[in-house]
Amino acid sequence: MSILCVGSVALDSVETPFGKAERVLGGSAVYFSAAATLFHPVQVVGVVGDDYPMADLDFLASRGADLSGIEKAKGDSFFWAGRYHNDVNSRDTLDTQLGVFADFQPKIPDSFRDARFVFLGNIDPSLQHDVLDQVAAPEVVACDTMNFWIDGARERLLDLLPRVRILMVNDEEVRQLADEPNLLKAARWVQERGPEIVIVKKGEHGAILFADDWLFYVPGYPLEEVFDPTGAGDSFAGGFMGHLARSGSLSPDNLRRAMVFGSALGSFACEKFSVEMLRDLEETSVLARVEEFRKITAFETHVRVADHV
Amino acid sequence: MSILCVGSVALDSVETPFGKAERVLGGSAVYFSAAATLFHPVQVVGVVGDDYPMADLDFLASRGADLSGIEKAKGDSFFWAGRYHNDVNSRDTLDTQLGVFADFQPKIPDSFRDARFVFLGNIDPSLQHDVLDQVAAPEVVACDTMNFWIDGARERLLDLLPRVRILMVNDEEVRQLADEPNLLKAARWVQERGPEIVIVKKGEHGAILFADDWLFYVPGYPLEEVFDPTGAGDSFAGGFMGHLARSGSLSPDNLRRAMVFGSALGSFACEKFSVEMLRDLEETSVLARVEEFRKITAFETHVRVADHV
Repeated sequence: MSILCVGSVALDSVETPFGKAERVLGGSAVYFSAAATLFHPVQVVGVVGDDYPMADLDFLASRGADLSGIEKAKGDSFFWAGRYHNDVNSRDTLDTQLGVFADFQPKIPDSFRDARFVFLGNIDPSLQHDVLDQVAAPEVVACDTMNFWIDGARERLLDLLPRVRILMVNDEEVRQLADEPNLLKAARWVQERGPEIVIVKKGEHGAILFADDWLFYVPGYPLEEVFDPTGAGDSFAGGFMGHLARSGSLSPDNLRRAMVFGSALGSFACEKFSVEMLRDLEETSVLARVEEFRKITAFETHVRVADHV
Repeated sequence: MSILCVGSVALDSVETPFGKAERVLGGSAVYFSAAATLFHPVQVVGVVGDDYPMADLDFLASRGADLSGIEKAKGDSFFWAGRYHNDVNSRDTLDTQLGVFADFQPKIPDSFRDARFVFLGNIDPSLQHDVLDQVAAPEVVACDTMNFWIDGARERLLDLLPRVRILMVNDEEVRQLADEPNLLKAARWVQERGPEIVIVKKGEHGAILFADDWLFYVPGYPLEEVFDPTGAGDSFAGGFMGHLARSGSLSPDNLRRAMVFGSALGSFACEKFSVEMLRDLEETSVLARVEEFRKITAFETHVRVADHV
């Protein structure tokens, strides 16, 4: 059974220290699907304008994305333009044109309504509610959000939390949501309001999964060139959910592995503009990077106490 | 054979969201020794004024620190006062009085000159040179520094690098030293100038060890309360060097373990003011935390490819 993914399908113009890309594929649903379809089929729900190069999404369809939930509306597609600073950890937004996304009302096709795995990309929490209202019996709902909604739609977002099993946000967002600087306490605060699992994404510093009585830490993969970090968080989510849905289990072992798959996909996403790197990725490369993650984090705890002087 | 440690022996007044401590033990040599002596004897070289409560260092002596290299000079001891912000990741320096530390000229006692393991705490690179000039045949020289010297004593610091085997700095410092935002490239830049190993400390985000053709990442231990982060970096260095010196080997396995010991000691240092937590620490608690690190980072790479849909 496919993963249902609802989010933005956008065009991005991006400038980094390494180059420029104009009106290329972007948006949370696109990055998520480009990552997740490496492991599991995805059903995509979103909206685009007349200007969207739908043919560029063929590679998603060819590896198991059902794009029939992408509505074509009159007007322009969601457009975002940004410029990254020299250290690639900060950026300026140069332009945001919501276009047809401003009136987005997610309509879940009948054939998508039996989804068990659902990813709610970063959209208005009211729309995230609407999505869940249309799904019969979702078992694993993962949800992203951002400062804008934490500030401006706080009550709707808090109402949503009991319907969410996995909240995925960045460190700044979870601190803001819980009004608590300590990550461990902030995650516990969220867990008390519904989500069994809180994943805190920290960009180049990796990500932490907080479960009931355990946690798991995966580093950011050390890249020589962070070419374009746009979409890394959604690619993380795609790798994570793709692995979970494929294995069908939320066992601790599987969740840990899913974190590593997520971090691997997030790192690949940064190596080229847009979804270019994800489009050409083979599963063997992903598995090789997962193995790299093991090498850079594994250690033997054994200590020869006889050496103690 | 002991580790030779040269650095500041100071008094700190610290204010955090959790409380205040007035004129308590501080300084790089004190934190380093408090951590390292849990694993290996340390010979301390530094300077204090008439006002220093030397009896408070008895716990160090009792577990293998030789304090005969701490010179008593006329005047006041190095004093630092600071206030941490609510999120404990940033702080304001309220006062710095160099006192007798301003004229510190490290004199290495004869009995310390055959040291094989040397830790050069964060002091003027010219003094770090002077220390090495007085040591017969150091095998493992680890060195810390800071923005102030990277800016103000750049040439002396670059001259020092060929004499250093392990450079330990934070992420901001290595970026500044190499004038390169990418950590991997910045570490390579340093390695081309001498140090075989570069350790980049990232506070709550952990630390990375860069060796010739491999690297190792250890997270920051997730604490519910970062009570006082003062000295965490020097405690990390102490745990790291203490483990290395005890085992006597710089094998990759040992270096990885040393990173985890370092991170464990850094985390303990944050749990109380000054060296209070390190003073009362038992090795069993350290080993338990090292095992915690394994739990929060270990994962199985095995994927059931048969599940691939």
